[in-house]
Amino acid sequence: MKTIGVDVGGTKILCRLVDTDTGKARGRSKCSTPKTGPEDVLKAVVDLIHELDPANEAEAVGIGFPGYVRADGVVVHCTNIVGWDRPLDVSARLGAILGKTVVVGNDVSVGALAEYRLGKSMDSASSTVDAGDDLLAVFVGTGVGGGLILGGKIRSGGRGLAGEIGHVTVVPGGELCGCGELGHLEAYAGKAGMERRARSMAGRGQASQLVDTMQEGSLKSRQLLAAFKADDPVTIQLLSEAADALALAIGNVSAVLDVPHVVLGGGVTSRLGQEFVDQIKSSDWFGGFGPESVELSLASRIDDAGSIGAGILAGDHLRARRE
Amino acid sequence: MKTIGVDVGGTKILCRLVDTDTGKARGRSKCSTPKTGPEDVLKAVVDLIHELDPANEAEAVGIGFPGYVRADGVVVHCTNIVGWDRPLDVSARLGAILGKTVVVGNDVSVGALAEYRLGKSMDSASSTVDAGDDLLAVFVGTGVGGGLILGGKIRSGGRGLAGEIGHVTVVPGGELCGCGELGHLEAYAGKAGMERRARSMAGRGQASQLVDTMQEGSLKSRQLLAAFKADDPVTIQLLSEAADALALAIGNVSAVLDVPHVVLGGGVTSRLGQEFVDQIKSSDWFGGFGPESVELSLASRIDDAGSIGAGILAGDHLRARRE
Repeated sequence: MKTIGVDVGGTKILCRLVDTDTGKARGRSKCSTPKTGPEDVLKAVVDLIHELDPANEAEAVGIGFPGYVRADGVVVHCTNIVGWDRPLDVSARLGAILGKTVVVGNDVSVGALAEYRLGKSMDSASSTVDAGDDLLAVFVGTGVGGGLILGGKIRSGGRGLAGEIGHVTVVPGGELCGCGELGHLEAYAGKAGMERRARSMAGRGQASQLVDTMQEGSLKSRQLLAAFKADDPVTIQLLSEAADALALAIGNVSAVLDVPHVVLGGGVTSRLGQEFVDQIKSSDWFGGFGPESVELSLASRIDDAGSIGAGILAGDHLRARRE
Repeated sequence: MKTIGVDVGGTKILCRLVDTDTGKARGRSKCSTPKTGPEDVLKAVVDLIHELDPANEAEAVGIGFPGYVRADGVVVHCTNIVGWDRPLDVSARLGAILGKTVVVGNDVSVGALAEYRLGKSMDSASSTVDAGDDLLAVFVGTGVGGGLILGGKIRSGGRGLAGEIGHVTVVPGGELCGCGELGHLEAYAGKAGMERRARSMAGRGQASQLVDTMQEGSLKSRQLLAAFKADDPVTIQLLSEAADALALAIGNVSAVLDVPHVVLGGGVTSRLGQEFVDQIKSSDWFGGFGPESVELSLASRIDDAGSIGAGILAGDHLRARRE
């Protein structure tokens, strides 16, 4: 089946035509994410779909959003999209405009779905992963996102919030997380958390290459890698604590769910690569039954897991409805 | 439908006739668990079933075992049953003897299933819990067991090990757990762990009412309660740390799975009661999105959740096969 997969991010929107049987994607249309509110975001999505599929080949559309998405097709809010602060029934709205089924999901969850399918049966860069029917995907970027596949399907949870491994507490009473709670994984392993900590250490007189290079801007993954390669002590400490926090949370979640396959993706992980994965594996903090009980691997797709996963989700939805 | 539910424990075996539509149980046959190996345990189970249901009313049998149970009906091992150190196909063996379907499950998982069904629609002491379709049950006794209901069904996991919240790491590098790993929840909140810690504190000169009353025996829940009520400082410290460890693990698991309903059972919890639940709720260590995000309640059944849950499991299995 051919579907269109759309990945709506905080900075860009990417659209691909997906063959749901092979997981292969072709074509590509993209644009910057409008900063003028959700109506303009939806309009941009429609334009990209028309540009990508002028012949109207696709049978359905799947869209991943960086926020809280309900099973009924309503996108409740997206903190990273300017102005998206009230629920919008995206599924109904775009379905009426496009004249086909539109399925929505959380971006990280659909990314996990793509990693699961690609690892399981399709063309994949990391062919060693046999994910069984379960997979935990952890995406380390500005924040830390997570997606859970249980029994071959996305686990959404009662409120659509499942998979939020970034908000597992790793240090009770520890560093402030972006969500307002203390000691969450994201406060240690997300780029925003590392940036806050590096700036606060600089404020206490502990200078670092990180603060020198990012200056007033936000921390980039490539700056993190450069400072790490230059043996910057603050960066080494922050990344070591990030690896510990990830090891604790991943081991614990894997143990409680009996999900032994974990895929690591996101900007920070893809930039730091296998060395970072190995650092997580060798952490003394590894939770649950330890690193031997978990298979950790790098995500096979960095840039298009979201769009491919959204396309796969739409295909699954249509197939289930027809059965 | 009428089924028989059997709860095989380390010390006793309990058998009940279950009406799977109402969750009500009637009749009761029980015996001490034979210490002479699994063959004698199975023989005892058959005798109890014949004693309970001489008219052969029940359509199927469900049995919960305190160990690692595979989905295909094989009980791999039960550490608390003397001599059960190799896999036995209980489902096939007892099915042939009894002439009806025999379904097996982990004792804690079937206990969670009973709590879920009783809380959802049947007669229940705690009628305030609307569990949705998901429930986390945490049983605090000698160890800490957990059972997960997702989408109305037991989550077993790829290897049948899901729900093992007792082996979530709460303090990296912390106290030794019975499983050999460090810092697990069970090392802090299980009776065996508390006993080890009380004895080791006594060895370092910190006497306590706990060690005085248990002497050479193992710690009983009623001794724990008595020492707590007598303001024994060691007991107060141990229970406070147990509550912190439970709060951290429960909050984290609930956040990552988006399962807001948590039921607490087991010998320690039932003896200490609501005061212990409140102590967990008010802990500064509460993980994930904090105590407001989770509804914690006492289990409605203490002694027969296992047998009723096993009976419900058997009924579900038969119904699914007939559909």
